[in-house]
Parts: sequence; C-alpha cells; structure tokens
Amino acid sequence: MFFDWLQRRAALTPKRLALSVGAERFTFAELDQRVERHAQQLATLDIGAGDRVALLLRNSAAFVALIHAISRLGAISVPLNTRLAPPELQTQLAQVEAKILIHDEAHASSAHIFAVPLLNTNSLSSQPPRAKPLFTPPSPASPHSLLFTSGTTGRAKATMLTYENHWWSAMGSLLNLGLRAEDGWLACLPLFHVGGLAIVLRSAIYGIPIILHDGFEPAAVNTAIDEEKVSIISVVSVMLQRMLAERGARPYPPTLRCVLLGGGPAPQPLLEECARRGLPVTQTYGLTEAASQVATLAPEDALRKLGSAGKPLFPTELMINAPDTTGVGEILVRGPTVSPGYWRDPEATAQTLREGWLHTGDLGYLNEEGYLYVVDRRDDLIISGGENIYPSEVEAVLLAHPAVAEVGVMGIDDAQWGQAPIAFIKLREGEAASADALRAFCQDRLAKYKIPKRFEFVARLPRNAAGKLLRRELKKIGS
Amino acid sequence: MFFDWLQRRAALTPKRLALSVGAERFTFAELDQRVERHAQQLATLDIGAGDRVALLLRNSAAFVALIHAISRLGAISVPLNTRLAPPELQTQLAQVEAKILIHDEAHASSAHIFAVPLLNTNSLSSQPPRAKPLFTPPSPASPHSLLFTSGTTGRAKATMLTYENHWWSAMGSLLNLGLRAEDGWLACLPLFHVGGLAIVLRSAIYGIPIILHDGFEPAAVNTAIDEEKVSIISVVSVMLQRMLAERGARPYPPTLRCVLLGGGPAPQPLLEECARRGLPVTQTYGLTEAASQVATLAPEDALRKLGSAGKPLFPTELMINAPDTTGVGEILVRGPTVSPGYWRDPEATAQTLREGWLHTGDLGYLNEEGYLYVVDRRDDLIISGGENIYPSEVEAVLLAHPAVAEVGVMGIDDAQWGQAPIAFIKLREGEAASADALRAFCQDRLAKYKIPKRFEFVARLPRNAAGKLLRRELKKIGS
Repeated sequence: MFFDWLQRRAALTPKRLALSVGAERFTFAELDQRVERHAQQLATLDIGAGDRVALLLRNSAAFVALIHAISRLGAISVPLNTRLAPPELQTQLAQVEAKILIHDEAHASSAHIFAVPLLNTNSLSSQPPRAKPLFTPPSPASPHSLLFTSGTTGRAKATMLTYENHWWSAMGSLLNLGLRAEDGWLACLPLFHVGGLAIVLRSAIYGIPIILHDGFEPAAVNTAIDEEKVSIISVVSVMLQRMLAERGARPYPPTLRCVLLGGGPAPQPLLEECARRGLPVTQTYGLTEAASQVATLAPEDALRKLGSAGKPLFPTELMINAPDTTGVGEILVRGPTVSPGYWRDPEATAQTLREGWLHTGDLGYLNEEGYLYVVDRRDDLIISGGENIYPSEVEAVLLAHPAVAEVGVMGIDDAQWGQAPIAFIKLREGEAASADALRAFCQDRLAKYKIPKRFEFVARLPRNAAGKLLRRELKKIGS
Repeated sequence: MFFDWLQRRAALTPKRLALSVGAERFTFAELDQRVERHAQQLATLDIGAGDRVALLLRNSAAFVALIHAISRLGAISVPLNTRLAPPELQTQLAQVEAKILIHDEAHASSAHIFAVPLLNTNSLSSQPPRAKPLFTPPSPASPHSLLFTSGTTGRAKATMLTYENHWWSAMGSLLNLGLRAEDGWLACLPLFHVGGLAIVLRSAIYGIPIILHDGFEPAAVNTAIDEEKVSIISVVSVMLQRMLAERGARPYPPTLRCVLLGGGPAPQPLLEECARRGLPVTQTYGLTEAASQVATLAPEDALRKLGSAGKPLFPTELMINAPDTTGVGEILVRGPTVSPGYWRDPEATAQTLREGWLHTGDLGYLNEEGYLYVVDRRDDLIISGGENIYPSEVEAVLLAHPAVAEVGVMGIDDAQWGQAPIAFIKLREGEAASADALRAFCQDRLAKYKIPKRFEFVARLPRNAAGKLLRRELKKIGS
C-alpha cells in the first residue's frame, strides 16, 4: 500500500484538478508528468534511494512536484525553513548530509554560501531527462521526509516521517473530516511545515486539489475561498483573525466546510466570532513528530468544549503521563502516525520515544469524556511560589479584552516567588489600554498569583513560519 | 491500528447513531455496551482467541453485536448462509470445526440437527456475564471472519478475511465514495454475505449508522431512503429494478448520494432509467476473496462506460492474465484487501493465490484508459464452434427487450458446435414475447453464433442470497 501515491492517483482520476497555484493549473495526469520529468532529471544527477534532497523553496508548483519526484526515486525530502539564517541552514544541511540542495530563484544568492551541491529550479526545467529511473517501492517504514521541528524549543532535530506515518495521518484526518468529491484544500502554510506538507500528500491520496498560496495574504485567501471553492483550509489563530478582519461583514460561502485551526489554543473571542458567522472551525492539536494532527475538536463542540483540542484521530492513542493532582501531565501519543525518531540522533530519539509512546513535551489533561486540553509546553510552564501558571491560560484571559489583538506570556526570574509571569501585548489598531486597565481586567478573572507582574506593549510578537507564538523569543524583546 | 474498531468508535463519538433496525436504535455507546455484554457472555462459554463461532442468523441487532463481540474475544466469526440446506450447513460447520453455533429463534428447529454446541440468541440475552474478558489485540494478519464463497461455482470454501483485509477494504471504499457526517448505509443484503458484513465494519470505522433490513422489501427500502435519510445503499440489479418499480414516478431525495450496484454487469435499460431519474449509481465488481469491492464505476461514467466495472480501488491492483487476441483474460487482483487464502485448504489456496495475485476465475479486459470490463465467470464461458460466447453479453442484449424482466444464458452440449447458448427468460408482468420475437430481436444485435438456440420462459431465475444469478443452477430448471 505504500506505493507511489501520485502515480496511482493519476491512473485513477487523471483529469481531476490536482493543483492550483497562481495562474497555473495541473490535473493529476499533468502533475504526474511533471513529477516523472523531475524524477528523471534528478536520476541524471545520481539522486537515488535513501539520498537526502534538501529543498529551500517558496510554496510553488515546483515544490509540490519535487516532493513527489524525490519520493518516486526512493530518496528523502528535507524541506528547509526559508526563514532561517544561513548558519542555521548550513547546520541542518550538514546534519542530514544532504546530497544536494534544490533552491529557487528567491534563494539563489543565500544558497551559494552552502557547502553542498546546488540546483536551481530554473536549471532543473532545462535539465535533460535521462533514462527512466528505476522506482523501488518503499517499505512502509522507509523515511519519506525529514522535517526539522519548528524550533519553538531547543536545538533543531530532523524528524523522520515514514510513508506509513504520512499514510495513517491522511487516513486519520479523512475519517475525522470526511471527504467530498468537491473538496479543495487551501495551503497557505509553508510546505516545509508538516501542516503544509501533509496537504500535498493528502491531495494525491484523496484525489482533491491543493489551492497553494505562497505566503499568507488574507485578501488572497478570502478571494480563493469565494472563487476557487475552497472547502478546507489549514490556519493558525492569527491568520484566521486577519482573514475575518479583511472579510468584514461579508459572509463566507457554505462551500467552506472546515477551517482547521492549529498552532495552539484559540482565543475565545475568535471562536465566538466564528460561531456567530457560521464558520465551521475544527481546532486541532498536532506536532511534527506525529505527522501533523493528533486530536481535533469538531465545530459543534468549539464553544461547548472551549479550550479543548478534542478527541484523538481514529488511529491515534493519547495518554497523560504522571498527572499532577489536577490531572495535568505530559501528553503522550502512540499510533501509526508517530515518527520512528530523529535522523541519526539516537539520544534525542530515546528521550522522545519511550516504549512506543511519543513524549510531546506538551502539558495537558483529558476530561472525563476523553477530550484533550493542552495547557502548555512543559518548557513554558511558570512555577511561581510553588504554583503552576500556564502562560496560555493567562493569554486566553487577556485575549478576551477588546483592545488586545495578540498576547504572549512568559516567566521571568523573581526574587520573591522564584518565577513570575509577564505579558507582551499587541493592541488592536485604533484601540488603547493601559497596563493598569489590563491588570484590573485580569483581577476579575484570574487568581492573584497568575496576574502578570508587567505588561509590555509591542508592535509584533515573535512567531515561527507556521504562525505559532515563539515564547522563548519573547525573552529577547522583553529584555 | 487493528484494534477494536467499535470500542474506539464508541470512545470517539459515543452519541452518534450506530444502528437502526426495525424500531430499535443504538448509539455507538449503546452498541458497544451490548457488544461488551455479549463478549463477556461468550467468554463464560469459554469462547476465546482463534475459536470459530458459527452464526445462523437473520439480519438483526444481535447479528451486528455478535460480529463485534466475537472479534473482541479474538475469536473468528463464521456467518452461515441461512438459505442452505441442513446437510450443506453441517458440512460447513465441520469444515471450520466450529466451537459453537449461535442461531436465532427462526433457525432454532433446523439448528437442532447439527453436531455442534448450540446457543440461541434468546438465551444469550439471559446468560449472566462473567469476568471482563481479556482482549488480546489481533495482529493485522489474524482472521476476523470466515466467509463461505457464495457458491456460484464448485464446492464451498471458507475464505479467511483478516483485520487488515477488512480495514483496507473500508479505506479503499472511503477514498472512492467519500464520507459525510450525515451518511447512513442501508444494508438489505444478508450480513453473512461479504457485501453485508463489510457495511457492519465500515459503520464502526467511519462512525456512520447502518440502516439494517432483514431481507429485501422494495417498499421498506424506499421508505427508509425517505425517512431515515439513507445516503448509501448496496444492491444488486434485481433489487434496484424492484425498487424503481415500487417507487413509480416519485423522485428519490438528494440525500441518497450513492447506489452501490454489485452482483454482475447491470442491464443498460436499468442504467438508463437511473440516469433519467438522477439516481447516482456506482457499479462495482467485487468478490468475497477481496473483502468486497475491487473496482467501481463512478456515476458520471455509468452510461459513458457502459458495461464497465470502472477502476480499481486506491489500494488495489488489477491485471489481466494471459489475454486472448481481444484482450480478454482472467482478472487477477493484488493488494491488502486480498484474503490470505481458504481456511485449512492449502490446495484451493495454492490454486487461487499465486505469487501474490488472486485468480478470480472471472474473465475481463482493461481498456486503454484502465477501465475494467468483466465479461463473465470463466466457468460460464460458452465455446461454440471455437468461438467464445460470453453469457452476459447475450443477456445484456435480451434485457434491452421491453418485455424481458430477467434473463439467464448458459451453454448446453451441442452435437454440431460443441456447445451452444440457450436463454431462460422471465417476462415483465403483463408483457408478452414469443421465442421467435426474441430471436428476431437478437438477430439485429448479435453475431449469428451467439443467438440462443432455445428460449425457455420461466417464472423465476435461480439467484443466491445476494441476488446474484446462479448460472449453474439454470441447468436444473433447463433440463
């Protein structure tokens, strides 16, 4: 079952739309032809089974085609985060011993400093194809891609995701979200992020088009929803907020059947606005090491189970490790979507994968009905006078303030309490709020020890390429 | 991934409707509770891993619950064909060395002759549950059920269907037909048939209700489509014909999104009528040994690709073995839905499964676009003067005659040509046609050697429990 998904798809439904990006359109047959050409071109360059092929690319048709072409050769895709600084990229290229780096014109100048053979996608198109490459069907356990974890904590590690991991992730998502002949999935997350990459593979497996955007532009996304009949879109809270702001009062069409909202707990006012507007928001908790989604909350539960990430996907098991008296402990994940480990890093692998369970480093609890509540990254936990403070809980309160657009809470050292929370606030345009006003707002809603000691007003909060808040980066703007 | 599907489903969506049968309704939580009770009751009777539990039951809630309860114990379901004569059943019970036979009240008197411990479903409900049975998770390759092949040819063999086979069949069907939260699947095929059993397992995996009927009653089916919002229904041609006749001019609601039509090529006039009425017919070719569907034809292709069974399911591969000059050969099937073989019958297994390919015994060809055309059972092929005559081709022509309701064609020995075709005709009520008229009708549409030598008019044609024509039984009514 772990054959060439795109090739099979092209044989079954050749004329269906596979990819819409800018003005370009590809049916599955057309995409498959392009993939076959790229596979032959890469074979000419001696790329074969097991080779790591690094990609430094903006979202584009070439990116989608290369992901499939690399797997057609039995080679392994290593999509790199285009936001990283050159020394970080060089470290990652060395870490996976990349045989080649394929980059686009946008990254041509930065790519030239790397100590690895380069291939510009421009010259790829003029590269003559050689003989038909020999395709060795991968085993279910072969790595399909190496994804560096988004780097919200610690040093970057290359998560191996196998064919099996991706396949089961696609099946779990399917059993949860359903599938309609008229579906189309909008990808505005970068394809080097697991949330973006998963859409590329689901598209081939499900036989539905990707509507691919290079970067997130709220107006462009809103237009695509209207004009390209997007039915599913993967976003994080800030993106959704910006989409709603840009949209104004105009309703969304009923063809938009699922807004898959990831990247951390969603603020209540946002969920309430979506409910008011009839937007079907499915909240999800996921991570690279589990090939994207782990648990999701159905739209009908969005407000009833506020703050919950819902129930696990069908093939996935959840467990809370060593819960404290309130039931909060580390979230463990088991099942066929879980990565076999980090590339050539037995130490990090042994630390993260124990007896078949993935130790996520996230804290959470399961309520009596089995709904998962993610409270925070374990590393972000603030311990103040012996009490646990979850930054996300404080953030959720502050986000309910009408003047607050975005907020990030972190712990600082405190002589009296060990640690104490401080808050970084980005105000809504045209709105004003003083630190005193926010403190008073918190006093009605939070235990005293949870109220931030300081409120810092900032123009933007540090986020990763997927839009996820980088709490450890707050330290830099806060110091 | 091959855990207790129903248990997982009940944990994820406990309140969704799982089963509607007669006046009874079960949510997944309620069905799971009943299954747990039955599993405990069976454990009390020392049923455990690997035991064969034969079932002689009409379609009922007990049948559904027992299928899940038996697998919860790691035991193997052996659903028996209730139409068989007692000696045939006794042979099958002995063949699988059944540890017990569970029967319902309707089969109480016939069951008593069998040399195997009996359990009446009535006494099952009063059986006290013992300790919680220990559930050993099955391996993907463990047999879930043994299904005797419908017996259209040769002696009955018990096809082993593993957890893996059923799972992949459910996934392949899902990727093809899609899945909607509002789906409900009507099962009027007997659950001892793979087409019925597959619905029971899909229901648990997909989280959608089974609307279960005990036997096929066109009026009841039509009412259920209206009142229970049935979205998918599995039928064979004769059932569909009777549904349309009963329905009259009343249109079907748009909630009915898939009529899965199996059991052999569908007559053109039926497909045309369905197209006229806007009924979305998905034709399918399947067999017990491949856990039901192998290939399906999308509704939009129903008339464009007339007579085709469409393209294989996503996980399934097709090949035509040793094709003749017209491209017709035996249909071979490979993939994770294919049975590992017949229960303790290495000889039959070796004959049917060769180098990973299932030899179906059906003849067909693939056109240049990869669409499958099933022409006939190899055993039904008529060879007349060295020419191949496919009974289904002759039947399709005769079915286009307005007076013909059903037809069966078979070969008889012929002194001059070796074999020659004869036709058994069931006329439509109130219609008349002479043998001469039918012969003339054929002369305009068929090569001379394909025209039946004789036309026999009959009141009914022999069909198996799934409604499939039994050509070898024609001999009996024809002699």
